[in-house]
Amino acid sequence: MSTTEPSPASFHESMPFTRVLGAELAAAGPDEVRASLAWSEERCTSGGVLHGGALMALADSTGGMCAFANLPEGSTGTTTIESKTNFMRAVRSGHVEAVSRPIHVGRAVIVVETELRDADGRLVAKVTQSQLVMRG
Amino acid sequence: MSTTEPSPASFHESMPFTRVLGAELAAAGPDEVRASLAWSEERCTSGGVLHGGALMALADSTGGMCAFANLPEGSTGTTTIESKTNFMRAVRSGHVEAVSRPIHVGRAVIVVETELRDADGRLVAKVTQSQLVMRG
Amino acid sequence: MSTTEPSPASFHESMPFTRVLGAELAAAGPDEVRASLAWSEERCTSGGVLHGGALMALADSTGGMCAFANLPEGSTGTTTIESKTNFMRAVRSGHVEAVSRPIHVGRAVIVVETELRDADGRLVAKVTQSQLVMRG
Amino acid sequence: MSTTEPSPASFHESMPFTRVLGAELAAAGPDEVRASLAWSEERCTSGGVLHGGALMALADSTGGMCAFANLPEGSTGTTTIESKTNFMRAVRSGHVEAVSRPIHVGRAVIVVETELRDADGRLVAKVTQSQLVMRG
Repeated sequence: MSTTEPSPASFHESMPFTRVLGAELAAAGPDEVRASLAWSEERCTSGGVLHGGALMALADSTGGMCAFANLPEGSTGTTTIESKTNFMRAVRSGHVEAVSRPIHVGRAVIVVETELRDADGRLVAKVTQSQLVMRG
Repeated sequence: MSTTEPSPASFHESMPFTRVLGAELAAAGPDEVRASLAWSEERCTSGGVLHGGALMALADSTGGMCAFANLPEGSTGTTTIESKTNFMRAVRSGHVEAVSRPIHVGRAVIVVETELRDADGRLVAKVTQSQLVMRG
Repeated sequence: MSTTEPSPASFHESMPFTRVLGAELAAAGPDEVRASLAWSEERCTSGGVLHGGALMALADSTGGMCAFANLPEGSTGTTTIESKTNFMRAVRSGHVEAVSRPIHVGRAVIVVETELRDADGRLVAKVTQSQLVMRG
Repeated sequence: MSTTEPSPASFHESMPFTRVLGAELAAAGPDEVRASLAWSEERCTSGGVLHGGALMALADSTGGMCAFANLPEGSTGTTTIESKTNFMRAVRSGHVEAVSRPIHVGRAVIVVETELRDADGRLVAKVTQSQLVMRG
């Protein structure tokens, strides 16, 4: 992300792929960014299971917004340098909600964790990302 | 993935999300699975940069096929249990090609690495995944 | 880990490297395993900073015990298949305490998170591990 | 690492924990850093298996040296910000050799991969690390 403010209205505008993906932003602030993705057949891998890539794309979108919302003064943006996902449970219906929160806000690196839960609130995946703080 | 054979023709059928994503399969076998994704504005995050989630979804698709193609006899499918991506370079034009190769084929776990390169052959991301071998 | 019960007394006996490392077990149960490592010059990398490998070895020890304490019936042990660490802060004095907790206990895989904190309670590293449940 | 030159002689001096660990440096340069660790009972977890933490500490040592050897001009050192290990095979005798190589040398981040092989040359673990380039 670079210069757009992280507001619900600007989710699809600032990150066009979230529109292709079908993700909807629910809340955005420095402490927490929430977005959801409905299950649909076209978002699946085989067996009617929501594609892991769709889950990771959802989490990368909320994670990037969360890092952006925590940028220190003087920085110009963030870029994801690494992302690690553990998958715990297949999603075959309903939706998934991603919630991103910062666990470390440093001068050079922001570490964001994202929990993805299904419609019953069960943890389906957990993501940890390092976001590099860019300057100049 | 569960029962569909990993052939180029079945890429979009076996993993519907790859059609939404816009990924195209180039080759598929136990030693190597290749697919590409063209840059387009709708696949970007802010700044005209290909969304990291699109890259991870591409790599998860080829990685899953690669694991499937290496399943030992008696197994019924694979499921990604974890995926780690390092991002090295932003992609602002052209396309990205993902190449997945197994680095360990065990009875319980298959480890697949995927390199993603831009149109100039430069490494833009590297993914390592653990795929669980399912039985019964 | 295979057959030894996870009790404080058996920490060094069941995992001899924890003695070389200098780690001390504080508590062990299925919900939480705690151990600490004192800063000392011989455990450092350059600059008087506790070596990242010492932190990862501490966390791998508590993480393994935590997974073992959560094994389902009929299983014979666990083995770490992957471990991911984010380092947030250098430790130059005092000690580090690792606390491991399960975030997913499945039939095939147990996912354990470990937080490492310094003497002031600040997060210095966070570890996520997948532990494979072994049978037969 | 900060200011010590990455030479074989300075391995234990610059990173004291490598002496506790028992690692021996074999070669060090920007393209490749090699070090080995002999199997011994005191370096094991349960079951006579070399402790995963010992493997990660070995790889973190060679990975840090490799990043240091690739520092761009004007930088003052590197620090590991994240480390991911996949474990493929238990080591019950002989030794392990770690070989670290850079896969990306950027202005802000250096990505290093480390392969760990047993005495028969079999891959026992693979590590990917992000090393932050420090300035001023």
